Amino acid sequence: MKLATIKDGTRDGRLAVVSRDLSAAVYADGIAKTLQRALDDWQTLSPKLAALAVQLESGSAPDAFMFDAVAAMAPLPRSHHWVDGSAYVNHVELVRKARGAEMPESFWTDPLVYQGGSDDFLGPTQNAPFVSEDWGIDLEAEVAVVTDDVPMSTGALAARQHIKLVMLVNDWSLRNLIPGELAKGFGFYQSKPATAFSPVAVTPDELGQAWDGGKIHLPLMVHLNDRLLGRPNAGVDMTFDFGQLLAHVTRTRRLGAGAIVGSGTISNYDRSLGSCCLAEVRMLETVAQGEPSTPFMSFGDRVRIEMLDGQGRSIFGAIDQQVVRTS
Amino acid sequence: MKLATIKDGTRDGRLAVVSRDLSAAVYADGIAKTLQRALDDWQTLSPKLAALAVQLESGSAPDAFMFDAVAAMAPLPRSHHWVDGSAYVNHVELVRKARGAEMPESFWTDPLVYQGGSDDFLGPTQNAPFVSEDWGIDLEAEVAVVTDDVPMSTGALAARQHIKLVMLVNDWSLRNLIPGELAKGFGFYQSKPATAFSPVAVTPDELGQAWDGGKIHLPLMVHLNDRLLGRPNAGVDMTFDFGQLLAHVTRTRRLGAGAIVGSGTISNYDRSLGSCCLAEVRMLETVAQGEPSTPFMSFGDRVRIEMLDGQGRSIFGAIDQQVVRTS
Repeated sequence: MKLATIKDGTRDGRLAVVSRDLSAAVYADGIAKTLQRALDDWQTLSPKLAALAVQLESGSAPDAFMFDAVAAMAPLPRSHHWVDGSAYVNHVELVRKARGAEMPESFWTDPLVYQGGSDDFLGPTQNAPFVSEDWGIDLEAEVAVVTDDVPMSTGALAARQHIKLVMLVNDWSLRNLIPGELAKGFGFYQSKPATAFSPVAVTPDELGQAWDGGKIHLPLMVHLNDRLLGRPNAGVDMTFDFGQLLAHVTRTRRLGAGAIVGSGTISNYDRSLGSCCLAEVRMLETVAQGEPSTPFMSFGDRVRIEMLDGQGRSIFGAIDQQVVRTS
Repeated sequence: MKLATIKDGTRDGRLAVVSRDLSAAVYADGIAKTLQRALDDWQTLSPKLAALAVQLESGSAPDAFMFDAVAAMAPLPRSHHWVDGSAYVNHVELVRKARGAEMPESFWTDPLVYQGGSDDFLGPTQNAPFVSEDWGIDLEAEVAVVTDDVPMSTGALAARQHIKLVMLVNDWSLRNLIPGELAKGFGFYQSKPATAFSPVAVTPDELGQAWDGGKIHLPLMVHLNDRLLGRPNAGVDMTFDFGQLLAHVTRTRRLGAGAIVGSGTISNYDRSLGSCCLAEVRMLETVAQGEPSTPFMSFGDRVRIEMLDGQGRSIFGAIDQQVVRTS
């Protein structure tokens, strides 16, 4: 099942079921007005949404309409919890190497996560507004899962059962604000502005065999201004699967339905596959040449993030955003 | 106007207007089912809520009932953004002094904030569940504001106009998890479990002259097991007022309606007024005696946090929680 949230002038939008090929959709607000509402009562409502999806695939859904990613908000236009991991530890290792620092051995067993703002997500084709290019504007292409209620102290294997939806993320980052912010000791805040999500969120079964072991075993394609920046495989070199990330984040708290947990920038040791953020490109340049040569993003630049299945069909639709100046 | 959210079996509860003396309440769900709904359309709905409050005060509200804090959830049982400052910089200075470290001069001009989980707030009298006493269970008594939509790049003075409600906070902290977590560089996560809020949230005008300059000029009283732990004044030694905190958090992003911004542990240089967390008590002991003698909290311990007006009347009702063991 694939779900989207269509713009209707409200803050939380209008829930729709989308066809597997992303061509058609049907409003699901007879079942649940919003995706949050559906997640709040997932056990009861998801079978009804699945039945509507079957109807849509068979061409028998009344009032079906053409699906257009431009009409989509983020699947959850706002959420109550957004925590992003850094599950591709080879990327973290590279960050440290580029600045000549050792990475603690514990980073291989104890996940890094940060909490992000969840009141203002960007839609998949929404412009990304920034005040200044001097902030070091960068994309981060990732995958994320959406959970139902997850009890405190949930183990990694049991946690996988709480993963209800999967989607793509562009975790916009302001690289030049990060060093100062991290030096203060409290983690990211200003350096992690509004995050964007893919046009649709899909249930894990839509991924078929590509969903295995709490990971998505497919390449994530990232284009910057129509140039391929990277296509690393999200299932390769992911040190912590989503179950392990969930076990980490529920150690001292429960998660409420609709919580979003991100993978962090996808990164493979095989550097021929490119990168999912400019920071990584610049770190590789620093390691190789002593300094970076690729600039961060400028106003007007576009980024496109998409994942194709084995047959070359887009699973989630594309995040396709332009960087714009705001005051 | 004072607002509470009454338990009704749903995740977001049922909005009620509460009388100034906290004795009576009336459901406001004819105006807005939930507080989030009211905040989503505050300009239109708050005058209607205010009119209902006038009716309640005059004794003419139909179906008024006795208000009981035990029936209250957090005013926002879940929110889309919870960011906590550390606005009483003398407290941060003391933390550093206790571990023999210098505090950067910039901490006096650049606020420290961290983002907390907002999917699972605790009600004012709800037990606070923890797996282990070894985690260093501590309270943090604070004040917080709730905003409407705040645009990106809002200045500190203009930001004050976006403060719609004020409430009390108990920002539960797990002190023994903090050093390891901060050493990883990404800030707090496991060390900041579910946060509790006061029975009612009030509009700033309810504070009269005590609301001035974006600060609340009243003592916050904290009792631990019926012993007074502290009563520092929230308006004294607050280095950054709430307008300044809002300017900081909107530097690179907008805030959505219902965002909660906390002050951080209240702390006065006048140490005779006591402390709002055990960490501060222990730091003062460390500075004076070389090591702390006060333990963190144990299962069964109670904490009570309350603020009285000039006439000794409770403004927000009391946060009154017990620490309990969970598995």
